[in-house]
Amino acid sequence: VEVTTHSQNPNAVAVIGAGFIGCSYVAVFARAGWEVRIYDADPTFRSAAKERVASLLKQTGHGDNLKNVSVHDDLEQSLDGVRWVQECTPENLDIKQSVFIQLDKLCPSEVILASSASALTMTAIAEKVSMPGRCVVVHPTNPPHLLRFVEIVAGANTKPHVVTEAAEVMRAIGQYPAVLHKEIPGFILNRLQVALEREAFKLLACQVASVQDIDAAVSEGLGPRWAALGPFAVEETNAANIGVGLTKFRAYFNETMAELDDEPFDAVDDAFIALAVEGVRVAYGENCHDDLLEKRDNLLTGLKDMHQP
Amino acid sequence: VEVTTHSQNPNAVAVIGAGFIGCSYVAVFARAGWEVRIYDADPTFRSAAKERVASLLKQTGHGDNLKNVSVHDDLEQSLDGVRWVQECTPENLDIKQSVFIQLDKLCPSEVILASSASALTMTAIAEKVSMPGRCVVVHPTNPPHLLRFVEIVAGANTKPHVVTEAAEVMRAIGQYPAVLHKEIPGFILNRLQVALEREAFKLLACQVASVQDIDAAVSEGLGPRWAALGPFAVEETNAANIGVGLTKFRAYFNETMAELDDEPFDAVDDAFIALAVEGVRVAYGENCHDDLLEKRDNLLTGLKDMHQP
Repeated sequence: VEVTTHSQNPNAVAVIGAGFIGCSYVAVFARAGWEVRIYDADPTFRSAAKERVASLLKQTGHGDNLKNVSVHDDLEQSLDGVRWVQECTPENLDIKQSVFIQLDKLCPSEVILASSASALTMTAIAEKVSMPGRCVVVHPTNPPHLLRFVEIVAGANTKPHVVTEAAEVMRAIGQYPAVLHKEIPGFILNRLQVALEREAFKLLACQVASVQDIDAAVSEGLGPRWAALGPFAVEETNAANIGVGLTKFRAYFNETMAELDDEPFDAVDDAFIALAVEGVRVAYGENCHDDLLEKRDNLLTGLKDMHQP
Repeated sequence: VEVTTHSQNPNAVAVIGAGFIGCSYVAVFARAGWEVRIYDADPTFRSAAKERVASLLKQTGHGDNLKNVSVHDDLEQSLDGVRWVQECTPENLDIKQSVFIQLDKLCPSEVILASSASALTMTAIAEKVSMPGRCVVVHPTNPPHLLRFVEIVAGANTKPHVVTEAAEVMRAIGQYPAVLHKEIPGFILNRLQVALEREAFKLLACQVASVQDIDAAVSEGLGPRWAALGPFAVEETNAANIGVGLTKFRAYFNETMAELDDEPFDAVDDAFIALAVEGVRVAYGENCHDDLLEKRDNLLTGLKDMHQP
């Protein structure tokens, strides 16, 4: 067998692992015009991959971009000439460590090795690789082809330029990259999700409401609003501004709703309010209140139209 | 002045308090064809109310229904002949107690007195009224004219038929009523919201990410998904079914993400998993997995189209 080594294509990616997240990530790269190579250790996943990607590409009207996608029976072949590897194997430390050792051996040093890990840290995953500097977590929201948010989390040895490049690549393919300042368990997406789930689970376990009603509090209430505005922007719009909002929040929740939380809102002191006010101004501008309200109402009106055609 | 007492109109409501929530509630009733009377103790709010309601009705294409709305300078006059009172005064126990004493005196016994209280309980609000049986919390999501979820919470003395009727009225005007089984601080909407906010605040206070990126994790990630599916439905779709999802969740989060929570997931034991599986089957049906996935993808595809026309 003759092996031809191609020069690197800056718009070529290998997606390793063709489960739900893998196939959806393939669609994101393929619709942005990248050449995408798929590899999965399981032949069943390999043979199902192309059809699955085809259906995901169709969902967003990019069916033609399937021509950019190839499936490979051999890991090394799938990696030939790529600039980026997106690892999407199961969330299991042994598996990811072993995959990263292989990827590190097979890929030239300039290739970035990104993991879709949702909670395992790159410090742990890259523990045994020889070049941990090019390894970085790039964790998407499920499913990435329909949700833009990805969090980029450096391991202890990840080089800063790799983090910068990861953010650039994600922006280039249409995602919203957030670079975390610290490597913490659960990163930010799952920490936020689990915070809500924990309360939902408690409400069911304590028989306060049914599954249907707890879910509806989210899907018919909080969720559509959160589809427009994150929690800080919601605080900005619920009062005259976030400073007023958080000051009210502190007084109101610490007094009226003291029993609501097992831990008190120690963090909502004057220093935190100042930090949040400054953060909102940096994020949305000095006079953002009306713009945020308009963004909320536009999205909610659009959603209402979708539900009631 | 001659006072004429009209017989009760089953589709007439008095909205007491013409702030953001009050005016939005007026729009919900008015577009459903109800006769709506507005009263606010503050003349400034009274004179601004009609214009505000007009703009809210226009948002959903119901501008013509403004004809159903009247503003009154006198509380007693606004209550004449109504079947329902929706109290929307500030979230302050003294104010709400005093308003309820007046409403209770002025309204015939068959009129239901509903409060938009978001955390104050009806047990506390109705403490001093003579007929607490017809008093009930009917707390909307802000803004109610664009979000359907309302939670109905009985006080210690609320009569069961009042709770039933409250749910019927809310359904009749197009809202999604959830009847809580217990009167707990924060009810369920704000408990769920505060759970997420607390984690968001912690992430900012610990300098893990910026306001913009924490908000984006919600508005570009979790929020759109929650606009389609609540947390139980999300668990159902993230794995083969919620039983598998929660079993994975327990193993994965209790081990991998032990540090994520200050309190462990004690609740996610076998009994809880059985409860959640049964709850999801009751809420969504035996073979709901594919339907829920389809609901999620349809909504996310629609949202993507809205953002990128």
